[in-house]
Amino acid sequence: MARIDFDKYEGFYARRTQGLRSSVMRDLMAITARPEIISLAGGLPNTESFPVKTLVKITHDVATEDSAAALQYGPTEGFEETKRNIARVMEAENTLVDTEDIIITTGGQQGIDLTTRTLVDPGDAVIAEAPTYPGAIPSFCSFQADVTQIPMDDDGIRTDLLKNELRRLEKAGRRPKFIYVIPNFHNPAGVSINLERRLELVALARERELIILEDNPYGQLRFEGEQLPTLYSLDDDDNVIYISTFSKIISPGIRLGWMVAPAPLLAKFNLGKQAADLCPSTLAQMVVNRYFRDFRWQDYVEKTTDVYHRRRDAMLAALKEYFPEEASWTRPRGGFYIWATLPGYLDTTDLLALAIEQESVAFVPGAGAYMDGSGANHMRLAFCAVPEERIEDGIKRLARVIKDQMALYKALKG
Amino acid sequence: MARIDFDKYEGFYARRTQGLRSSVMRDLMAITARPEIISLAGGLPNTESFPVKTLVKITHDVATEDSAAALQYGPTEGFEETKRNIARVMEAENTLVDTEDIIITTGGQQGIDLTTRTLVDPGDAVIAEAPTYPGAIPSFCSFQADVTQIPMDDDGIRTDLLKNELRRLEKAGRRPKFIYVIPNFHNPAGVSINLERRLELVALARERELIILEDNPYGQLRFEGEQLPTLYSLDDDDNVIYISTFSKIISPGIRLGWMVAPAPLLAKFNLGKQAADLCPSTLAQMVVNRYFRDFRWQDYVEKTTDVYHRRRDAMLAALKEYFPEEASWTRPRGGFYIWATLPGYLDTTDLLALAIEQESVAFVPGAGAYMDGSGANHMRLAFCAVPEERIEDGIKRLARVIKDQMALYKALKG
Repeated sequence: MARIDFDKYEGFYARRTQGLRSSVMRDLMAITARPEIISLAGGLPNTESFPVKTLVKITHDVATEDSAAALQYGPTEGFEETKRNIARVMEAENTLVDTEDIIITTGGQQGIDLTTRTLVDPGDAVIAEAPTYPGAIPSFCSFQADVTQIPMDDDGIRTDLLKNELRRLEKAGRRPKFIYVIPNFHNPAGVSINLERRLELVALARERELIILEDNPYGQLRFEGEQLPTLYSLDDDDNVIYISTFSKIISPGIRLGWMVAPAPLLAKFNLGKQAADLCPSTLAQMVVNRYFRDFRWQDYVEKTTDVYHRRRDAMLAALKEYFPEEASWTRPRGGFYIWATLPGYLDTTDLLALAIEQESVAFVPGAGAYMDGSGANHMRLAFCAVPEERIEDGIKRLARVIKDQMALYKALKG
Repeated sequence: MARIDFDKYEGFYARRTQGLRSSVMRDLMAITARPEIISLAGGLPNTESFPVKTLVKITHDVATEDSAAALQYGPTEGFEETKRNIARVMEAENTLVDTEDIIITTGGQQGIDLTTRTLVDPGDAVIAEAPTYPGAIPSFCSFQADVTQIPMDDDGIRTDLLKNELRRLEKAGRRPKFIYVIPNFHNPAGVSINLERRLELVALARERELIILEDNPYGQLRFEGEQLPTLYSLDDDDNVIYISTFSKIISPGIRLGWMVAPAPLLAKFNLGKQAADLCPSTLAQMVVNRYFRDFRWQDYVEKTTDVYHRRRDAMLAALKEYFPEEASWTRPRGGFYIWATLPGYLDTTDLLALAIEQESVAFVPGAGAYMDGSGANHMRLAFCAVPEERIEDGIKRLARVIKDQMALYKALKG
């Protein structure tokens, strides 16, 4: 009577778990928590700059005034007050929303997962950007989506290539269940979709009756340039599902995000959320609501955006100074990330091991942002979580590893 | 260019959403929140008895000492300290566990969902009790499990009938992906599995290389009788996945539960959790950990169990006094629920509408606990959330509706 041999037991795991791999960011968390490592890997918001006094006051008020309610279960879709505050946040991006179109989720991540869970049967087509958010990949894999990734340039997703892909699918009698895009300060690409393409995307969705899944965690973290309209605000019909989160404007530790969707879809998301985790945290919602009641929520966003802005500048300067001229990188106007491209013969997954070992510096290898593991000569560099002087040092160290590898390659080839 | 017609668009939703229905408890939340309603429906813990001063102190300490960390992302599997506290909770049920075998989840619900997500392909067999936890049904439906429910008696799941079902499946060349049981103070049945059957279940699982999914949210809430060993503690091999939650011993509003599982499964659950919501709330974990550091966690459990005990007594007394003699009900020795059985010709879903309308009293209809919508002559009566005098009043009102319907039926038949 042996122990269960999980590997032997054929078909023990659901097919959806096959090929399910860890999101690289998660794998790197333990390594990059070591103090000697300069981590340009994690997209960790600057929670140090959230005012301690504010947190002390709001938790105190919640605990004294509403403790029984804060500790109790709540409605699956979240509290009305939370939704009103979400409407205020969206209004700051000129996006008007009815509170009845909102469901609160366990972080923005749950929005991606619920959408995929609700819409995707195994083999169904989904379109994403190339690169895409590494954390979306486990959700896509979980529900066996057949994902095509459409290349981006400095103005975001290449809508011309998107149209080609839609035509290709149409010829095969298929249409994508949804098109997943991150229009503002893309994770990991750092770029934004320009206005022309935004209009094009929404028109395309209307014309072809397609759903766009708009993921906008970083929209409020703008350093410069004009604010661009959300796809949701450009859509007069029911073609856009909008996802965002409190993670970057208050805290990821409270695990609160939201979705905005047409009523029939919202009803399905509600059922999916009941199955997934019943309801969002009431304690976390009451902390958020108290914060919105007694403080100006934009203050922290402005303060923290300022920090990210300086860090981006430091990273751009360091890249220019230290990175080899064969490398190129994006110039984000907000958000957390720069996407760097190295010569095609380099593999950033191998490079990561060397970078950690030899130079105590970490980043997210490009392959993590591709369903098929391509993108090996790219890397995501997060400037959000590290002070300026450490950023400079980190890029300097990383440049050494890259240059060493380039020299090695050239010596072997030469 | 019409709006998307979600109903018309064939195959728009994934097949897994078909037949996905709302858990009755969730539907009833809005109705039962109305103050004039006596709700015997919701399984709401008595959060009023959680000491306000304690919550004030722990949130204050977390906010002042660890604010940046409390607001930050954390590891997917949860903090080591949280796991050590979980091990202490499990030790109180004589169940020893290594912290490395634990993953923190977003409530116990996520444990059920992750297990199903990880193990079940469409059509795979799963075994549950009849009745089963109504909230498990949306997860089972979501992943298109083919669920057989095995009847229970006062000593829990009928292991003789379980064996028959396993033989039947075996003849068809199938084996269940897991057997889902709630051994202590069952939701909704109120009964516990006796020691003999616990031993039998574990032996059966070992013999046939089966996984038992043991869900134990109520084990600590014992009014009387001996503490029975968890299935996990009886299992020397890898046959039991154990799920529990802080919801009933601290608060459901913090959305923290956990799973204990063999390493290969745990790795898959971790991947599933990354896709589902990245990581558990750090703020909530730090609140829990601070509570365990500075307070005796059993104090609240003892105090709140005492409340539930008195309420159960009140409900049993009221049932005896007011319910028709054709009705029967279970006598739980802990937990939240009594399961009542009415004459077979009554349908408690119809009865609920009348009860709310005519008598302002609510309960969970039996059909919510059956995959196939059977169980119509049963009802779940939660004694946890309502003071004794309201319980008596509620049962009295409910009895009136039942007796009216019985009289009506007899008049029509007579």
